[in-house]
Amino acid sequence: MPTAKREKWSKHFGTWYRKVLIEAGIADYRYPIKGCGVWMPYGFQIRKYGLQILRDLLDATGHNEVLFPLLIPETSLQKEAAHVKSFEAECFWITRGGLTPLDVKLALRPTSETVIGPMLKLWIRSHADLPLKLYQIVNVFRYETKATRPLIRVREVSTFKEAHTSHATLREAEEQIKEATRVYKQFFDELNVPYRISRRPEWDKFAGAMYTDGFDTVLPDGRTLQIGTVHNLGQNFSKAFDITYETENGQRENIWQTCYGISERWLAAVLSVHGDDNGAVLPPKIAPIQVIIIPIPHKEKSEEINNTCVNVCEKLKKSHIRARVDLREELTPGAKFFDWELKGVPIRVEIGPRDIEHSEVVVVRRDTFEKTTCKMDKLTDYLQLLMEKMAGEMREKARKWMKEHIHKAKSLEDVKQLLKKRAGIVEVSWCGETNCGLKMEEEINGKILGIPQDEKEKPSENCIVCGKEAKTVVRVAVAY
Amino acid sequence: MPTAKREKWSKHFGTWYRKVLIEAGIADYRYPIKGCGVWMPYGFQIRKYGLQILRDLLDATGHNEVLFPLLIPETSLQKEAAHVKSFEAECFWITRGGLTPLDVKLALRPTSETVIGPMLKLWIRSHADLPLKLYQIVNVFRYETKATRPLIRVREVSTFKEAHTSHATLREAEEQIKEATRVYKQFFDELNVPYRISRRPEWDKFAGAMYTDGFDTVLPDGRTLQIGTVHNLGQNFSKAFDITYETENGQRENIWQTCYGISERWLAAVLSVHGDDNGAVLPPKIAPIQVIIIPIPHKEKSEEINNTCVNVCEKLKKSHIRARVDLREELTPGAKFFDWELKGVPIRVEIGPRDIEHSEVVVVRRDTFEKTTCKMDKLTDYLQLLMEKMAGEMREKARKWMKEHIHKAKSLEDVKQLLKKRAGIVEVSWCGETNCGLKMEEEINGKILGIPQDEKEKPSENCIVCGKEAKTVVRVAVAY
Repeated sequence: MPTAKREKWSKHFGTWYRKVLIEAGIADYRYPIKGCGVWMPYGFQIRKYGLQILRDLLDATGHNEVLFPLLIPETSLQKEAAHVKSFEAECFWITRGGLTPLDVKLALRPTSETVIGPMLKLWIRSHADLPLKLYQIVNVFRYETKATRPLIRVREVSTFKEAHTSHATLREAEEQIKEATRVYKQFFDELNVPYRISRRPEWDKFAGAMYTDGFDTVLPDGRTLQIGTVHNLGQNFSKAFDITYETENGQRENIWQTCYGISERWLAAVLSVHGDDNGAVLPPKIAPIQVIIIPIPHKEKSEEINNTCVNVCEKLKKSHIRARVDLREELTPGAKFFDWELKGVPIRVEIGPRDIEHSEVVVVRRDTFEKTTCKMDKLTDYLQLLMEKMAGEMREKARKWMKEHIHKAKSLEDVKQLLKKRAGIVEVSWCGETNCGLKMEEEINGKILGIPQDEKEKPSENCIVCGKEAKTVVRVAVAY
Repeated sequence: MPTAKREKWSKHFGTWYRKVLIEAGIADYRYPIKGCGVWMPYGFQIRKYGLQILRDLLDATGHNEVLFPLLIPETSLQKEAAHVKSFEAECFWITRGGLTPLDVKLALRPTSETVIGPMLKLWIRSHADLPLKLYQIVNVFRYETKATRPLIRVREVSTFKEAHTSHATLREAEEQIKEATRVYKQFFDELNVPYRISRRPEWDKFAGAMYTDGFDTVLPDGRTLQIGTVHNLGQNFSKAFDITYETENGQRENIWQTCYGISERWLAAVLSVHGDDNGAVLPPKIAPIQVIIIPIPHKEKSEEINNTCVNVCEKLKKSHIRARVDLREELTPGAKFFDWELKGVPIRVEIGPRDIEHSEVVVVRRDTFEKTTCKMDKLTDYLQLLMEKMAGEMREKARKWMKEHIHKAKSLEDVKQLLKKRAGIVEVSWCGETNCGLKMEEEINGKILGIPQDEKEKPSENCIVCGKEAKTVVRVAVAY
């Protein structure tokens, strides 16, 4: 495959992003249907390691993985009023089975509340069956009419982790929201992706929910990307699907539900936040190859060098470091560097004739290009520590960058200017009224992300729209 | 959930099968759409361990896991003539996106040759890109009009492992067919599921293939179940999609392709072949819980007993045995036995007051109910060996049973009688002519599975239909 032209990524983020995805072998969206793409072998491995972090976090908190059907009868989708209103115009609809028209149209799941409803009704009988915490990792579909963007705005969301929980009381559902938030924070921390958590305004909450909290990060072009959402569904769906349980007193009550989801946008965020002119920069935890070993050839000693590389690789593998040697003869070391940098391999080890003489190797970090040497017999420990250090520094660097892209503003005009130059997130004072909020979005040509959930700060000014007393700080941005 | 009535499984196989699936917590097909079901938490874990065996075998032979889109534009599906003819009447068709009709109808993939075609055309340039061996594990769809049966005949095949390979020459494709066959044999051997491999007759091969080899097993009701297929696609799809590569001589040639698939029927086979009146019997390799430890309570010593159970469990886990203690207080030991037998847990360990006195435990095999005792300090090794022994004996028992259900017959009438009483597979002599084959299927009210690929035997008689010289032995059966 052709190699990527090194472009100033922050200036040409869109171009950079698409090129890296294909040329690093991550994902290819040149499929004959808009917004549908392929996970290529290397990308699939990154996906696997990323999802493993998420699975481990969910399994450790008592969630059970399951798999529900893709298709939803129109009659099920229609049961929750707000839900159908929001989703029916966004679904793909199956109207024909083979050559015959279907009696009941079937939707491709845009999300699975109405898939799970009828089954929960069968499974949940008494308080002893609660809480029930399920999750699945599946594809979901939206008939997207706007411009699509790989992994970010797609028609087939190929990797949607959706959790669905059932509880006896509202209080327990609220506790679940907190647990879900903790899990998501840990997940993004492991990926070294910074975020802010904001409670979405009424008009932007999940259709059918009491409220929605969103995780947002800032991409290099200054727009925000929603990378996770947590919803308290209350009893809306349990009433629509008649899901009840017998309390300890023998009464029948509707269950309380929450749901929360993360799509493949987590990878879009990782690539965008950490990438540079040379390509992807993967956090070690999700790198399919953590260490690439490259022999530096020498007329007489090439065989010895190659053998040393293979031996070093085997040793690293025994300590569970995902290492590989690049023995391709047709490429120069430089061409190999270029290739593995593009793919974001965290550490490069170079071994040449002089290194062998001194029983050492050259170690190069992908994120900083810092070069060090290390004695061969100390290499395993050295690399393990270095990967931890890199992860920490990548996280800090990204956090710092995000912090620099969060501003406060005191007037609509200031907000407008900041968003116009894509400065990131802007925090302003707001009265909390829907009319005022909608007006704000129109004026600033941006979106209200919502009320901060990660830090409680009192508004310092009056509402920047109506000038009345402000009830809250609210975050706004130009969002993907 | 209610417990299963213990039914004579071989006599009432259909009823037994559906009950065990739901009551053991494996799969629930009571979804509002026919032929669509849910993998429940316990079933999902079995699925995970089973798929891990398959993934390991494929990865070890140089296959790369990927993920392709679900949707196929009608224009792609139409490119290979035999393929579209076979599948267009079996597809679910999307005709609407949101509220607007689509210009090009979209099919839910029934299989992915026409999904992969356009991408291979982009990716494959020269002989250096070959062979390319990909696989994915996805859901596929058939608009099934016949009666459905969980995991066996469904509308959403939720777990389809499909491999797709590309080669420079026919010879290399033929070699790939052999490798695929070896991989599938190993997979079913690991699951302790016996099989026969037969080359399907012309009229039953995969639409678009040169030939198809099928793996079949015999279910307890005497019908055969196709559990895997391997296809040589020749250049049919590469010509339809114009997929070419540059040879070493600088010529452009069409690639040669194979594909091979296994669906969730592997689990249907495992459950059916090994199950008994008490429920499922899982091979240790895919059992989410390999050892269940049950305390036998005693007035004064219950706490000590429970603690011992927990300690034993921790010790087993450290040696990577998937063990669990059942400490539920509301159930008697007998009720617990019943539960875990239903779920097919391979080994039960019972610990009571007398066992503690003697520093030993009682060990019960799920497959034979054989009871032994073992000193506590020898338990880990004992259980590990026992699981290996069980797997071997389950495999042998199943093989023997299958062998007893393969017959030879010399006349149409004999075949008819054998199939009428569901005796399994029948081998007969055949002239090899299509007309004769179709007539045979009609006369015997069964199906030609095909020509044996696992054993080469010369026909001993003339063709049982036309009486002319037989060219081959052929297998027939009543197939699912």
